[in-house]
Amino acid sequence: MGLTSFHPPQRILMGPGPSEIHPRVLRALSRPTVGHLDPEFIRMMDEVKELLKRTLLTRNEMTFVVSGPGSAGMEMALVNTVEPEDAVVVCVNGVFGARMKAIVERLGARVVVVEAPWGRAIDPHRLEDALKAHPEAGVVAFVHAETSTGALSDAAALAAVAHQHDCLVIVDAVTSLGGCPLKVDEWKLDVVYSGSQKCLSAPPGLSPITFNDRALERLRRRKSPIPSWFMDVNLIMQYWGGDQRRAYHHTAPIHNLYGLHEALVLLQEEGLENAWRRHWENHRRLREALQAMGLQWWVPEAERIPQLNAVRIPAGIDDARVRRRLLDEYDLEIGAGLGPMAGKIWRIGLMGYSSRRKNVLYCSSALAAVLREEGYSP
Amino acid sequence: MGLTSFHPPQRILMGPGPSEIHPRVLRALSRPTVGHLDPEFIRMMDEVKELLKRTLLTRNEMTFVVSGPGSAGMEMALVNTVEPEDAVVVCVNGVFGARMKAIVERLGARVVVVEAPWGRAIDPHRLEDALKAHPEAGVVAFVHAETSTGALSDAAALAAVAHQHDCLVIVDAVTSLGGCPLKVDEWKLDVVYSGSQKCLSAPPGLSPITFNDRALERLRRRKSPIPSWFMDVNLIMQYWGGDQRRAYHHTAPIHNLYGLHEALVLLQEEGLENAWRRHWENHRRLREALQAMGLQWWVPEAERIPQLNAVRIPAGIDDARVRRRLLDEYDLEIGAGLGPMAGKIWRIGLMGYSSRRKNVLYCSSALAAVLREEGYSP
Repeated sequence: MGLTSFHPPQRILMGPGPSEIHPRVLRALSRPTVGHLDPEFIRMMDEVKELLKRTLLTRNEMTFVVSGPGSAGMEMALVNTVEPEDAVVVCVNGVFGARMKAIVERLGARVVVVEAPWGRAIDPHRLEDALKAHPEAGVVAFVHAETSTGALSDAAALAAVAHQHDCLVIVDAVTSLGGCPLKVDEWKLDVVYSGSQKCLSAPPGLSPITFNDRALERLRRRKSPIPSWFMDVNLIMQYWGGDQRRAYHHTAPIHNLYGLHEALVLLQEEGLENAWRRHWENHRRLREALQAMGLQWWVPEAERIPQLNAVRIPAGIDDARVRRRLLDEYDLEIGAGLGPMAGKIWRIGLMGYSSRRKNVLYCSSALAAVLREEGYSP
Repeated sequence: MGLTSFHPPQRILMGPGPSEIHPRVLRALSRPTVGHLDPEFIRMMDEVKELLKRTLLTRNEMTFVVSGPGSAGMEMALVNTVEPEDAVVVCVNGVFGARMKAIVERLGARVVVVEAPWGRAIDPHRLEDALKAHPEAGVVAFVHAETSTGALSDAAALAAVAHQHDCLVIVDAVTSLGGCPLKVDEWKLDVVYSGSQKCLSAPPGLSPITFNDRALERLRRRKSPIPSWFMDVNLIMQYWGGDQRRAYHHTAPIHNLYGLHEALVLLQEEGLENAWRRHWENHRRLREALQAMGLQWWVPEAERIPQLNAVRIPAGIDDARVRRRLLDEYDLEIGAGLGPMAGKIWRIGLMGYSSRRKNVLYCSSALAAVLREEGYSP
């Protein structure tokens, strides 16, 4: 068993990530390896930092890439800023808000939860109420675009409320970055992390992250040591920092960073606002096609992100069977619902390089054909 | 700045890692992306597990790949097995033993250090003395092959002493795996982690890891929760586990795993013992060539690993200047000394695909030429 090379099938990826990867990015992955302290590699890292600042719309010097997936970015954001006994407000309207809560609890902090139904945005008034009831809270954490439902919260409004109560703002932008407006400095978001494999369409396994001065000030005022060595931002910045003399921390994921660099170059070539518009246009096309088939969205129109579409599974249709047929007969991946959404929704991603008119047409046609064969009629 | 693609130079990598990557592995990296829950991808993950078991010489079911570099593997090994107030014996004879100590301290445990000089193996008698003096200790952690010096400790002997005192044994095999004998089951090593970018010659950013039943039993008996969500083995195994129904934990680093799979297939094709022999033969060739030039090894012959050669920098020779000339004029990377070894040694790696006769000849000639021009005479 397993003694021969693996040749993956050629899928059309329209789930919640990973998204498809542009051929230029795939080719970048197989460029020759260089050392992680090679002057040429360090020059590339500086370019990645600059490209990320332009993509996140921030001037934060402490902008870098976590050598792990988005979940590692989430833990890095929290482990550096939250101490035992801290009071932390976590907004929960899906899987990833719940994950933030779980991490904060493991750090020994007290969690105050602000909830919204799955598929709805977080209500800034509910956050306001929670902060009034818990003046001891020092951190507010929320998910900008919930990957489990495709609901978009108003990050600027939530951050404004949090800052009125002198709280640090930590934002999960895993699914929003590159697919819809995200303005780190203008919206005054203090710590923001994302993932490589959604709207950036870089290889999975990296997490861009940024800390502003307010976040760094909180780090400096910590009373307890940061419990993780691997995730200690102070140590990592000796390698990713602006200084010419880089200190070894760990071996960077060289090839994945080649891929992320190329993906960010592609995004700059397209233009960030053009990319947002493209995501919106393809969402509109998909919506028209699927609504014509009688399918409905889970999230109210005003609270939707264009890049991840939570579509209600019609009554009487076998969720797993349809997804399996799309995969087997059409090489097309769409996403299942997570947790309480399992069996209720499909998650159709139009992220990054997957957000193409060609994919919209293919997916609509394939889904229509399978649903028809499964006995669905609008 | 940074708006164009990055084209790395073509280096000959003979530092402490990353090593060069076989063209077949580089090509595997750019295969098409599939979803991390795709049945074909899960089949590949099962093959990676099986290939890793054969490479680690273990039958441990809980053998998988950490979605982060070797340092993340180190933290994962410790964060799951060490609790606050535990007494942990850490053997320190270089940078990576010291890093284990730092992580154990951050976990709130008490560290008992067993030291050896940098460049020497850990003495099992010193470990025995420490365990007699600290019968409360429950864990012994050590580095098999110290990447900072190239010293090899006797893992089987250290593990036997630790088990006599009923301690769990945690082993850093980052630099040893694939380059010299490492027998996880035969030597009764309880938790072992490694890195992808040394003697496996896979892309940097992954850490193979294995836990035996004794380690899992310790996990089950924990009194406190595991402080990290990202590194909680119980959660990760819901994704990497043997069960057919894989639960989502985080998005796997798909392309890096393509690369690791191909690298492990190559290693099986060569044969593990043949690879050990190749590493030894190329070490012997390098030793003969450099000793003929009058250069000396830092580590006593009986305690050396073949894959990482700590060579004393001759008196009067400018360390950084020589390394820079090798890089600029010969596209050849060799490693500097770390910490207290800086300026005293060069670390010449012959790891994985870098361990080729061609590289030995090239490196010897280039180093001889540069040293001669720098005024060195034996």
